[in-house]
Amino acid sequence: MTMASPATFSRNGFRNEVMFNYPNLCSNQSRDTKAMPASAKMQSSLLTSSEKCVKSQLFARNLRKNSNIQCRAVAAEGKTLVTVGNKFLLEDIIDAQQFNRGTLDAVFEVAREMEKVEKGSLGSQMLKGHLMATLFYEPSTRTRLSFESAMKRLGGEVLTTENAREFSSAAKGETLEDTIRTVEGYSDIIVMRHFESGAAKRAAATASIPIINAGDGPGQHPTQALLDVYTIEREIGKLDGIKVALIGDLANGRTVRSLAYLLTKYQDVKIYFVSPDVVKMKDDIKEYLTSEGVDWEESADLMDVASKCDVLYQTRIQRERFGGRTDLYEEARGKYIVDPDVLSVMQKHAVVMHPFPRLDEITVDVDGDARAAYFRQAKNGLYIRMALLKLLLLGW
Amino acid sequence: MTMASPATFSRNGFRNEVMFNYPNLCSNQSRDTKAMPASAKMQSSLLTSSEKCVKSQLFARNLRKNSNIQCRAVAAEGKTLVTVGNKFLLEDIIDAQQFNRGTLDAVFEVAREMEKVEKGSLGSQMLKGHLMATLFYEPSTRTRLSFESAMKRLGGEVLTTENAREFSSAAKGETLEDTIRTVEGYSDIIVMRHFESGAAKRAAATASIPIINAGDGPGQHPTQALLDVYTIEREIGKLDGIKVALIGDLANGRTVRSLAYLLTKYQDVKIYFVSPDVVKMKDDIKEYLTSEGVDWEESADLMDVASKCDVLYQTRIQRERFGGRTDLYEEARGKYIVDPDVLSVMQKHAVVMHPFPRLDEITVDVDGDARAAYFRQAKNGLYIRMALLKLLLLGW
Amino acid sequence: MTMASPATFSRNGFRNEVMFNYPNLCSNQSRDTKAMPASAKMQSSLLTSSEKCVKSQLFARNLRKNSNIQCRAVAAEGKTLVTVGNKFLLEDIIDAQQFNRGTLDAVFEVAREMEKVEKGSLGSQMLKGHLMATLFYEPSTRTRLSFESAMKRLGGEVLTTENAREFSSAAKGETLEDTIRTVEGYSDIIVMRHFESGAAKRAAATASIPIINAGDGPGQHPTQALLDVYTIEREIGKLDGIKVALIGDLANGRTVRSLAYLLTKYQDVKIYFVSPDVVKMKDDIKEYLTSEGVDWEESADLMDVASKCDVLYQTRIQRERFGGRTDLYEEARGKYIVDPDVLSVMQKHAVVMHPFPRLDEITVDVDGDARAAYFRQAKNGLYIRMALLKLLLLGW
Repeated sequence: MTMASPATFSRNGFRNEVMFNYPNLCSNQSRDTKAMPASAKMQSSLLTSSEKCVKSQLFARNLRKNSNIQCRAVAAEGKTLVTVGNKFLLEDIIDAQQFNRGTLDAVFEVAREMEKVEKGSLGSQMLKGHLMATLFYEPSTRTRLSFESAMKRLGGEVLTTENAREFSSAAKGETLEDTIRTVEGYSDIIVMRHFESGAAKRAAATASIPIINAGDGPGQHPTQALLDVYTIEREIGKLDGIKVALIGDLANGRTVRSLAYLLTKYQDVKIYFVSPDVVKMKDDIKEYLTSEGVDWEESADLMDVASKCDVLYQTRIQRERFGGRTDLYEEARGKYIVDPDVLSVMQKHAVVMHPFPRLDEITVDVDGDARAAYFRQAKNGLYIRMALLKLLLLGW
Repeated sequence: MTMASPATFSRNGFRNEVMFNYPNLCSNQSRDTKAMPASAKMQSSLLTSSEKCVKSQLFARNLRKNSNIQCRAVAAEGKTLVTVGNKFLLEDIIDAQQFNRGTLDAVFEVAREMEKVEKGSLGSQMLKGHLMATLFYEPSTRTRLSFESAMKRLGGEVLTTENAREFSSAAKGETLEDTIRTVEGYSDIIVMRHFESGAAKRAAATASIPIINAGDGPGQHPTQALLDVYTIEREIGKLDGIKVALIGDLANGRTVRSLAYLLTKYQDVKIYFVSPDVVKMKDDIKEYLTSEGVDWEESADLMDVASKCDVLYQTRIQRERFGGRTDLYEEARGKYIVDPDVLSVMQKHAVVMHPFPRLDEITVDVDGDARAAYFRQAKNGLYIRMALLKLLLLGW
Repeated sequence: MTMASPATFSRNGFRNEVMFNYPNLCSNQSRDTKAMPASAKMQSSLLTSSEKCVKSQLFARNLRKNSNIQCRAVAAEGKTLVTVGNKFLLEDIIDAQQFNRGTLDAVFEVAREMEKVEKGSLGSQMLKGHLMATLFYEPSTRTRLSFESAMKRLGGEVLTTENAREFSSAAKGETLEDTIRTVEGYSDIIVMRHFESGAAKRAAATASIPIINAGDGPGQHPTQALLDVYTIEREIGKLDGIKVALIGDLANGRTVRSLAYLLTKYQDVKIYFVSPDVVKMKDDIKEYLTSEGVDWEESADLMDVASKCDVLYQTRIQRERFGGRTDLYEEARGKYIVDPDVLSVMQKHAVVMHPFPRLDEITVDVDGDARAAYFRQAKNGLYIRMALLKLLLLGW
């Protein structure tokens, strides 16, 4: 499954939101409150105000440390978001469908704080004493370094496995579940990249510590989706009413599929699909956009689209998807290139984005233009990941 | 050599114990005392009480930093344990034969402290400023992450080499000794995994900083042996008088061989060997157990043994040992499986252990039973390694 | 290009020195001064004394963080050294030709401070909050661990990529420039090893953070050259007037070529070349030495040379340079060996050096002699790299 069907989207969208209904987050509490979440649903009306007062850090930590007992009693089916007062606690980051407009806003608010933290002179010690394991079953240097930088910029520590598939017990036949149950004993959070769709979900079902999906095969890569939407907001200043062109390999690119999904959370969005015929956007996404009231159209005229849009989101044509058909690949690859001609028709405030790596689908003479947002976009990945680590380990 | 013969055991057991005969460890000292160990043996009677007072941290560090001059003068033949008062300092961890009942007890006492440290809210800074190099000539993700987590949980730092065999100067023909003499310049302790039996001993003979053997080919894996014995004590509450079944590949598994060796240190132990005929426990261990007065028997009846034992120690049949004989492997593999039927005859207090990775020699429906101790066992590896790092770098 | 021709040396030697002409470095400043460097050249006479006072740490950091705006306006053509008062700031470490006698002295002075820092009991926190990325496109465990140890000994943090060539987006066709512009967003300094000559220079031209060349193919390995010269000074006590024998593979060894280049910075140096005919020192270096007034000669008599020199710098004959000609390799390899016979004719104060890895061109029975300086030389690599990291990240 490359992505859930529309029906699945609505079923999956923001599952298991649980209101603990605590009055407010405050900073003092005794350690006694750590057992509270387990029974909070039933007993919260009996608690005194000070007992109800939960310091998010201890709360999150204890929620984790005792999750077999406590957390699962509350979040029956799975784990996604736990709301404390009008704040929420993230448990795992598995797919883009976990997020709605409110949770996106909240993550982005923290990400903006993280921009300030990162620019500060000596870094933060916010996650000091926390240990992240990066369990990569396939290599992805960019994503790995981005997560590890995020952790270290917040004072946390990292255990790295760059090539878990070849090196680990997996090669001897160990199940993912056994690996996760071992690694969770050595760390506080696991960032996992896997070659199989659904692997992150399996890991999260097993683990008593938070799992972040850093890409699971043709499946999901939710932190990329979040940083894309965050970048649009930072660059354009808004998400409602924007016009976005998705260009290039729309059939195989999981980033454009996730981005299209997340854009349905905003009002009056218009999406243009510009792609070679062999790699057109698939019907499931088109139907889902329609069902959610998002206006979209396909176009073969990049110049026309470029002149209208706020965002040109270019992607790489993935050679590996063409098997031996080099001719088809070459034809598809040369068709829609973002170059100075395209820049010349774009609006002043519009931007060019790209999830990287890039080959020549954006020419290097575009890099110097202020509207070339792709390096800033890569940097935003750091802020989003800092925000997620903070939210998962410390809570709001 | 896969394991020392009984004769070698007794020769090797607890070599080079050196009494410095300091009155007590205490916390204040001047830096002047750092030169003391070199001459301590000869001069200790001339020292004043305060001069004799050694803060273990500086002592250990200086012992290391000056070991060419000082330490070798004292520990003539090699290095294992240095006793200060009634405490000891470990120098290297090379094989299970280094340990006797007293040193095992001491390590386990520190390991129990480490359980508290690890569960503390923000980790310890006990090893802050210390640097561990993990020099792995063959990959072992589980062991590596366990050591690195141990170091980081204590505030130390890590230099990692995941694949030293392929990547390092070793590929150009550099000797292990040259590599060690370089890496010891960059770190305070080396954790080494090697593909050759005896490599750790060679490294320790060269290095002026502590070496921990994280497995050397078919040779030793002493930290696994320690964590196994520690787990039995934590789970059963005692080691004297226990009944242990060793199941599976007893011919090739170094963990069961080391465990059998260490169990001779305790009273009234009974060992059952349960294994397919092609991978039976070898005679050297059986003879050694007999010579040490340990009662053992072989059995083909897993259900009977399971009903009597405190510990079922299951191991994986190692396919790689069967060459092309898939038929023999499959036959051996399916013979003794720990499943709910086996659980049903086990005593309430008994436990199932496994050194991991596991295939299907313990079925996953056993995992939920409280007697399934193998994930706790893996976690105990963290505590044992924290304890060893603390003892080697800071002393008692 | 294996090394610049003499003409290029003089063109490249110490480019772009820029005098900011600040009176002195002092320790207090407001953050307002961070914008000063951009306009300093034009405006420095208008600044008040306190405005001119720049704390090197903030200066260096801000220089980096704002380098697109500020720094490039000043350092027009490229980047090497920025002088503040009579101190200098390094920008990147790309090649040996960047350094002159004054800058070498300055780096060595900091390296000697670093020896004290490293021997201190609990390490320094000088680079706390700084993040170094080691981007290695080909493996070099020794060099990588040396840099990572240097960073961690100063309290800094590290992001590691041990095998960037195989794992990173480079495999999908990403340019080095795109990789650098991404990684610079995640770190404060990049240590890069690459398989292509000139790669470090390209990276430095792109990056707004400092780049250190940790070897680029047959090109440069400047930190090795620095540690070699530093070792000679530490061991012999001087550089002027020394006699150095370069032995072994002089045709392919970049270390001996860089060392020869740097020795021209000192007075009355005499260089002996001792090598098998197939791997003799090339004419470009010989001509350059002559043009710089350095006396050199070729000799086939190692014993004679050994009796005269202060330094015997032995190198490995590199098998990989001989293709299938094993016979030529074996002949070349056995020709000049440093052994106890060679030691016996050496002067008391003279030393043997080697850049490692070593095979048998220095026999192991030389290791115990006090004149065997090669392990101390490897350790000096740590001090030089600590010094460079400090200078690049904090300034003088």
